[in-house]
Amino acid sequence: MDLVTEKQSTIRKSSVSLIDCDVHPFLSSLDDLVPYLDESCQKQLNIGKFKSEFLKSQNNGGFEFPKGRYGNPGHVLRMDAIPQDGSIPGTDPNFLIKDLFDRYNHTYGILNIGHGTMAAYHNTNLAVEYTRAINDWLYDTWVESDQRFKMTMEVTPVDPYESVKEIQRIGRKPGIVGINLRVINIPFGKKHFWPIYEIAEEYGLPILVHPDAEGTSEYSAGQAIGPESTYIEWHSTLPIIAMRQIPSLVFEGVFERFPKLKFAFIEYGFAWLPHLMWRLDKNWKGLRQDVPWLKMPPSDYIRRNIRIGTQPIEEPFKPNHLLELIQMINAEEMLLFCSDYPHWDGDNLNRIFLRFPDELKRKIFYQNAVDTFRL
Amino acid sequence: MDLVTEKQSTIRKSSVSLIDCDVHPFLSSLDDLVPYLDESCQKQLNIGKFKSEFLKSQNNGGFEFPKGRYGNPGHVLRMDAIPQDGSIPGTDPNFLIKDLFDRYNHTYGILNIGHGTMAAYHNTNLAVEYTRAINDWLYDTWVESDQRFKMTMEVTPVDPYESVKEIQRIGRKPGIVGINLRVINIPFGKKHFWPIYEIAEEYGLPILVHPDAEGTSEYSAGQAIGPESTYIEWHSTLPIIAMRQIPSLVFEGVFERFPKLKFAFIEYGFAWLPHLMWRLDKNWKGLRQDVPWLKMPPSDYIRRNIRIGTQPIEEPFKPNHLLELIQMINAEEMLLFCSDYPHWDGDNLNRIFLRFPDELKRKIFYQNAVDTFRL
Repeated sequence: MDLVTEKQSTIRKSSVSLIDCDVHPFLSSLDDLVPYLDESCQKQLNIGKFKSEFLKSQNNGGFEFPKGRYGNPGHVLRMDAIPQDGSIPGTDPNFLIKDLFDRYNHTYGILNIGHGTMAAYHNTNLAVEYTRAINDWLYDTWVESDQRFKMTMEVTPVDPYESVKEIQRIGRKPGIVGINLRVINIPFGKKHFWPIYEIAEEYGLPILVHPDAEGTSEYSAGQAIGPESTYIEWHSTLPIIAMRQIPSLVFEGVFERFPKLKFAFIEYGFAWLPHLMWRLDKNWKGLRQDVPWLKMPPSDYIRRNIRIGTQPIEEPFKPNHLLELIQMINAEEMLLFCSDYPHWDGDNLNRIFLRFPDELKRKIFYQNAVDTFRL
Repeated sequence: MDLVTEKQSTIRKSSVSLIDCDVHPFLSSLDDLVPYLDESCQKQLNIGKFKSEFLKSQNNGGFEFPKGRYGNPGHVLRMDAIPQDGSIPGTDPNFLIKDLFDRYNHTYGILNIGHGTMAAYHNTNLAVEYTRAINDWLYDTWVESDQRFKMTMEVTPVDPYESVKEIQRIGRKPGIVGINLRVINIPFGKKHFWPIYEIAEEYGLPILVHPDAEGTSEYSAGQAIGPESTYIEWHSTLPIIAMRQIPSLVFEGVFERFPKLKFAFIEYGFAWLPHLMWRLDKNWKGLRQDVPWLKMPPSDYIRRNIRIGTQPIEEPFKPNHLLELIQMINAEEMLLFCSDYPHWDGDNLNRIFLRFPDELKRKIFYQNAVDTFRL
């Protein structure tokens, strides 16, 4: 992508309404959370008046925010999204509005906080407090600043009990449009998560799934077999997470018990969908005794209850093949446009949907999101 | 499949030469291995003159052959493949010749022993002895009985040192056409396996990968995230293994170091290939600094060095879509016909390739196997 050229001359605002289902705001520092945490938590997180540079400098002394194992050889954030004051991309709502919303004519951008790795943190009680704080910070600082900002709220996947409490606390607030459920080492179909699904369905909130906590702690999910060596290997195999969770959800009967609940899998691409739908349907024909609670083929549940973010969009050897693939499985109403701003591998809506018919673009850019999120 | 009808009237012998790359012979019992094991091993395996019914009846007392976690609600073997004497399907070479080879006019059937779960057994030394014994049993009992039988030899993936010794011992024998490398919890790209790859390339033997040892022991590979609940969920997510191993092999540079080495992934289906090739190529464009040893796009390595079994073939909503998918990625020379006889989910070559052009069928049924295995 030659963004410089684009900035100079060829910016085309979207002619249809646009809902961007994956926009990442970031904290400038953990200190932003001081007003939202009690003194005990501030001390544990080594922030605010309790911050100790001595502790921080000691190996294993102070709190370390959990990080992923793999370093992007470039940077995970776009260099051209750095504001003029040199601050971190995604930390300034006003800059983001200018750099993203004004450029492409966004109707809404759905915020997904770019600090999800606490979801699999070993100190679950601290993770719960952090989750509460970051939800309130995001709401106050972003959602209340501009009506175009909507947000998915965080929960703590290791702790469904507290997740339900958190949804009860803020889940009815306008501007909160979904629940961000991070991936841990328990498949999403298991009963562990059903209390969350019950209240999510009741509140009309979809579950959003997005990579972040993989490989950060003992509660993290693995991408099959064993550790990846490099960032490229890790990133390339992320879609396995979606391909593993969807059969778990379908076969455990989540969508029989919660027929109105939608799951949006964001940032896993989607060209694996034909394989998955075909294989699951074929297996269901031969093995349905294993899952007698299913009343229709797996692909029908997938089409009804699963939504998929477009990003990072696969790039076929011939451009038209992506459209053909979507048509093969009637996935027109499953796809949600995601820019992933300001991440390095974001998709530019001026470049990647050129060959899609207008009616399909209207669905991907707008209608499917309206039908999924509680907007 | 209505096999009765087929048996009565509609059997069509293949008009092209046919190589079946996945045929499963079985031991009648572990006692078949007595002539191939020393007394210490016989005692450990509780077979031969050392067999103790008392030990066998004791919980945790005698040896238990490692089993998969998931029970097929039907049976993993085809009921119609049971010989008239009621013995286990796949145990009688003469019956298999009649029931499979004579029916479809097989040129060769490549045998893959249907007892692979020892590959991830915790007692590695015993697994090595078992591997040696079963290779010799298979060679003597099957390969020497009919020139249509070819075999892949087993190695012990946890133990590359002994694997190399075993390949040195029998890897040059005519009739041994590849190496069966079972999946364990170390990705195939890691250096752990490179001694095996080095000798495999030298001997002209491809590596064959096939499910079996998943979920049987602590050395087993997982299919991402956490345990499946049911056989249908486990079986549906098996292709994840291939989708995880291929990026590992490509990005670690296995095919730069061993350019003539071929990997055949058998029994994972193949409709996920477009997604995988497109995603890996896109990521390589952005992240090639991570893997500077790669000299061409990942899809070029995949097309050159990876082969994929057709079974269990995905069944699209419209039959022609499978062919379109193959053409999207120029995979015509990657596919190998596999019947998976006598397993429950085998594909019948009279039914599933009807719409494929003759030239493609010739490749899938014959030429691609000739170009892959040391026949």
